Amino acid sequence: MRPSGRQPDQLRTVNITRHYTMHAEGSVLVEFGNTKVICTASVSEGVPRFLKGEGRGWVTAEYGMLPRATGSRNDREAARGKQQGRTIEIGRLIGRALRAAVDLEKLGENSITIDCDVIQADGGTRTAAITGGCVALVDALRYMQREKMIKSDPLLHLVAAVSVGVYQGTPVLDLDYPEDSAADTDMNVIMTSAGGFVEIQGTAEAEPFTETHLSGMLGLARQGIQTLNELQQQALAAEE
Amino acid sequence: MRPSGRQPDQLRTVNITRHYTMHAEGSVLVEFGNTKVICTASVSEGVPRFLKGEGRGWVTAEYGMLPRATGSRNDREAARGKQQGRTIEIGRLIGRALRAAVDLEKLGENSITIDCDVIQADGGTRTAAITGGCVALVDALRYMQREKMIKSDPLLHLVAAVSVGVYQGTPVLDLDYPEDSAADTDMNVIMTSAGGFVEIQGTAEAEPFTETHLSGMLGLARQGIQTLNELQQQALAAEE
Amino acid sequence: MRPSGRQPDQLRTVNITRHYTMHAEGSVLVEFGNTKVICTASVSEGVPRFLKGEGRGWVTAEYGMLPRATGSRNDREAARGKQQGRTIEIGRLIGRALRAAVDLEKLGENSITIDCDVIQADGGTRTAAITGGCVALVDALRYMQREKMIKSDPLLHLVAAVSVGVYQGTPVLDLDYPEDSAADTDMNVIMTSAGGFVEIQGTAEAEPFTETHLSGMLGLARQGIQTLNELQQQALAAEE
Amino acid sequence: MRPSGRQPDQLRTVNITRHYTMHAEGSVLVEFGNTKVICTASVSEGVPRFLKGEGRGWVTAEYGMLPRATGSRNDREAARGKQQGRTIEIGRLIGRALRAAVDLEKLGENSITIDCDVIQADGGTRTAAITGGCVALVDALRYMQREKMIKSDPLLHLVAAVSVGVYQGTPVLDLDYPEDSAADTDMNVIMTSAGGFVEIQGTAEAEPFTETHLSGMLGLARQGIQTLNELQQQALAAEE
Amino acid sequence: MRPSGRQPDQLRTVNITRHYTMHAEGSVLVEFGNTKVICTASVSEGVPRFLKGEGRGWVTAEYGMLPRATGSRNDREAARGKQQGRTIEIGRLIGRALRAAVDLEKLGENSITIDCDVIQADGGTRTAAITGGCVALVDALRYMQREKMIKSDPLLHLVAAVSVGVYQGTPVLDLDYPEDSAADTDMNVIMTSAGGFVEIQGTAEAEPFTETHLSGMLGLARQGIQTLNELQQQALAAEE
Amino acid sequence: MRPSGRQPDQLRTVNITRHYTMHAEGSVLVEFGNTKVICTASVSEGVPRFLKGEGRGWVTAEYGMLPRATGSRNDREAARGKQQGRTIEIGRLIGRALRAAVDLEKLGENSITIDCDVIQADGGTRTAAITGGCVALVDALRYMQREKMIKSDPLLHLVAAVSVGVYQGTPVLDLDYPEDSAADTDMNVIMTSAGGFVEIQGTAEAEPFTETHLSGMLGLARQGIQTLNELQQQALAAEE
Repeated sequence: MRPSGRQPDQLRTVNITRHYTMHAEGSVLVEFGNTKVICTASVSEGVPRFLKGEGRGWVTAEYGMLPRATGSRNDREAARGKQQGRTIEIGRLIGRALRAAVDLEKLGENSITIDCDVIQADGGTRTAAITGGCVALVDALRYMQREKMIKSDPLLHLVAAVSVGVYQGTPVLDLDYPEDSAADTDMNVIMTSAGGFVEIQGTAEAEPFTETHLSGMLGLARQGIQTLNELQQQALAAEE
Repeated sequence: MRPSGRQPDQLRTVNITRHYTMHAEGSVLVEFGNTKVICTASVSEGVPRFLKGEGRGWVTAEYGMLPRATGSRNDREAARGKQQGRTIEIGRLIGRALRAAVDLEKLGENSITIDCDVIQADGGTRTAAITGGCVALVDALRYMQREKMIKSDPLLHLVAAVSVGVYQGTPVLDLDYPEDSAADTDMNVIMTSAGGFVEIQGTAEAEPFTETHLSGMLGLARQGIQTLNELQQQALAAEE
Repeated sequence: MRPSGRQPDQLRTVNITRHYTMHAEGSVLVEFGNTKVICTASVSEGVPRFLKGEGRGWVTAEYGMLPRATGSRNDREAARGKQQGRTIEIGRLIGRALRAAVDLEKLGENSITIDCDVIQADGGTRTAAITGGCVALVDALRYMQREKMIKSDPLLHLVAAVSVGVYQGTPVLDLDYPEDSAADTDMNVIMTSAGGFVEIQGTAEAEPFTETHLSGMLGLARQGIQTLNELQQQALAAEE
Repeated sequence: MRPSGRQPDQLRTVNITRHYTMHAEGSVLVEFGNTKVICTASVSEGVPRFLKGEGRGWVTAEYGMLPRATGSRNDREAARGKQQGRTIEIGRLIGRALRAAVDLEKLGENSITIDCDVIQADGGTRTAAITGGCVALVDALRYMQREKMIKSDPLLHLVAAVSVGVYQGTPVLDLDYPEDSAADTDMNVIMTSAGGFVEIQGTAEAEPFTETHLSGMLGLARQGIQTLNELQQQALAAEE
Repeated sequence: MRPSGRQPDQLRTVNITRHYTMHAEGSVLVEFGNTKVICTASVSEGVPRFLKGEGRGWVTAEYGMLPRATGSRNDREAARGKQQGRTIEIGRLIGRALRAAVDLEKLGENSITIDCDVIQADGGTRTAAITGGCVALVDALRYMQREKMIKSDPLLHLVAAVSVGVYQGTPVLDLDYPEDSAADTDMNVIMTSAGGFVEIQGTAEAEPFTETHLSGMLGLARQGIQTLNELQQQALAAEE
Repeated sequence: MRPSGRQPDQLRTVNITRHYTMHAEGSVLVEFGNTKVICTASVSEGVPRFLKGEGRGWVTAEYGMLPRATGSRNDREAARGKQQGRTIEIGRLIGRALRAAVDLEKLGENSITIDCDVIQADGGTRTAAITGGCVALVDALRYMQREKMIKSDPLLHLVAAVSVGVYQGTPVLDLDYPEDSAADTDMNVIMTSAGGFVEIQGTAEAEPFTETHLSGMLGLARQGIQTLNELQQQALAAEE
């Protein structure tokens, strides 16, 4: 039995609110149950130095958490003068995931920065960030087309992510914090709306996991991401 | 005429939402028009080293801004490894202001950290942070009383803050970003609900300001803060 | 009764020594009693990036304190790899104050950096730094005219600063360290020789302060700054 | 055809040299073809603060690369004052992997730090580091038993890692740098000698990958790791 | 012919002013011609961690330069968040030199920090700092004896330093900045008043130097340091 | 009697292995007994900013030590975010020494960076680094000639270094760690193959040293460096 009373294959309630803040070209509040992340997409002309003159664009991401997004307060990373390893790792993961959604050639020499800031955490912040960040990214691409910064739509497919794990011996979908803390295995799966894998990261927390568990988790992830893709589509279909 | 069409002595619409996030002992979303700040109060046992063994508590504050809270994206301070001078200065100001609300002896050797994170900026973020932060602080003090961490209420009075300025030669109340950018003078006033001054910070942006302007601004501030104190009281009177 | 035996409206002995060190375009040792600050003005061609191509100049300031300028040794900020919040805040204050003395258009695309280094501290280091820094700034402007870097004098007026406070219930002028530590309220006032306010920063250390105390302090500050302006003039009138 | 002429399921020549340097409790030079990593295991009494008093030990790892381990020189991270995101991420990965090899209860309140320093890079540095690091770890555990720091052997099983990828449409084992740069997908698999998965990290570099490719890669990894486990065993069986 | 017109074996005018600032246990302004350094000695109880419980004391030093001590302004190290290699190296040199003057056993578990801050630079700042720092150190030792922190005088002998070099083929004593910039070889020699060598650091700037030049420089240094020792003695003999 | 049983004038066994790693233009493993240092020389076009447009090249060096190169593990400097003073100082020393080997005019506007990374330490790491680094430098210069980056050979002479000291009252050559820790005096001498001094750094660890000891040490150094120069020549004479 899951702490939340959910079925093994049941996502938490997912909400995707577009135009959440007013300045960014894309701005989304994404909620996976009690996990809440503000995802903004900021468009800028030009690309980082290592890409200059190659005619391609760039998508990058940064991740952060308000100090009291969690049960006990964490030091503010800006005040400590250093991001934690975990923070840097998640930002890199989100960036890689969202670059897979975009044809960087069609983006021209422009950059999009996705900022994912967790205002309330209850497990699965990185998967919520990717799922919401992709919607913010689409809004930014639409903005660029309206503003004639680009000629054609660089979007290849939507990208969404979900966590799966083995909790008390059973594969489960979309772990919240109590499950995540107690799970034997935790895996983040990132897929496109076309059904391809973008990234798989699975870690045995206690016991190594078996091939059977791996199959079970991958099956749940595939189904969960399909639902998330539908929710992304619905959010993006709404009137502006 | 003010860009927003407001009267010189008119505040923006102010909203104070308590219990905004779920983990912190006090959590407030404060809105001064389009300026939105999440203020959380985190209680911890013990005090910083310089206060150890003195039997008194401590209240401190940190300030931050999401990278895209503003019209163009600012570098994430955690990623740059350094807070800007402005950020540090505002955090120190909020801390001083909120310490004035509390009898630190009655707090015992406990600490409260107020985190003020701007999710959308349109001028007056520090005054909104102080006004909302004080409400979060009161919620944290109530928590400490419920949990029997302290015996009596350390609250001395409420503290609120507002900006005033001279805009096109006229003193005005609660500047938004377009006014702030164009104002000749900008002054932040912090007062208690008992009518005492906690802090005054006035800066001539272009022309030095006169004694007459100073009096005009102080009068507007006094009146604005009185209104803010009433809104704080109303928010705090609501059922939990 | 003040610890120093001074009258409430009495400044400490103020000395302004020009040409104190040999390399800088302006170099002043300013003494407010036992507080001693070396203020140098360094001229350089060009402006910071955010001002490039606008035809205007820039004046900025940095503040520092020798580790043993005070009663007990402070860690050297360069060795710790970080300036304290207080240090950054004071540097920004001095910079704003001295920019108010100069017509930045007339400065052309040139920069002046004012370094204020406290070699002995006894309260009021920031007000001494502004008062002495302004004299160093004038020497730098004279240098630029002699060297034909600029055509006309960019000086608008002299700027000076003084602290006032409420000590044992009475407003007093130019607090030294023993008063400063014990004062209920501490206010720094920066004014031009034309009598306009450049900046006011007043903080209640213990009790909030009243309107009456505010008026009393502002009156003392006005008179003290007038005397400081005269001492600046005398120093600048001396033979080179 | 692979650039190196290897078969799709062929590892590079792997060498594991124990007692490579003289001071560390475990010291291994591991070579996966031209990739060469020095792995040392350092034993110390006590555990990090977050584990104090829990009666368990800790295994952690750090990763580094000599500036000219690669084709063009990289800035020295110590001189830049900051580790790259990639460096931090790999260090965390190695630490997690090697903790899976050890019963931390049996380690007592002792710590082992695995330092993996790449002296020559040709792809697969992190998998070589894990594979060699595990041998250094076993030597450190043997040292602790000889020195009576622990009573029983905390080793649960050996851990090894290998990279797999999809190169020109075909799953291949143990990518070298030319393959790695051109591969569509890159996956690192970490397994125990008992056949369980410790960690899977697969990333689509260009095209998302399919379920079929995933199966192909996992099959190659399983077989490659079995060979690596045998090489670890042989190295560990040698006379001291 | 030397730029200053001095003889090859002629020191610049050296002044040593004790009690230069009021807070430090030892405070000296040392002038070697136009080079001016404030040296303060700060006494504190306790020793750094690596010495705890050994019954011995510690003497350490830090070096700094005001940003405009030189002909063109250097970035403030505290603002850059990093000391230059040169700064760190000189601080370590001064510390080593002054530890040679003291019997650390007799110092008990107390520490003395020598801060050497250059307010005006014209070559030879490190040798001036050592020579003046030693006088500040003696004043701190006298303070400790007066305050009964120590029972007997830990001073072993005075330590002084001077630079020598080869300028246009001739060995010369106490190089000023114009000579230093043009010299073929620059050597800093630190000796005790008993005639022993504490440290020799000689560097060929352009051409390697010969044994003959080395002998010439060492002879000049010996004589110069003897004169400096006399000046230290005179300064220390003066009425307090 | 020396701990190692060597004669006072006896070097440890010295090995110089060229082409040690495969990517760098020069790559040497140098061994002074148990001290082992990897020295690589990396060639790049262009020079640091301060040399731009002067038609001269630059040679610089960086020094590092693997965390467990020594008897107990040192914190990784990259992870601490700061190089130790000792590390910076040694890097600067190696750079100065190797610049003395090269005619920077003939190098054109090109740079060579020498990285010296200690993989096993037993005293004398800096002297081994200079001696081995010079061989790597020569290989880099040969590469530049083969690649036609330069027309003539910029090598002026070989540079080598050795430590000497006073151990139990007797001058000895090439101190290992046990001697180094116990020596009264430690001196590093850097000379050219033409017999000129490039740098002398001698420090009295306990007692100041006398003129006689200085002569004794210089004599041993001269002889030791002659031997090292021969070993460098032999290594460089070997077939490529």
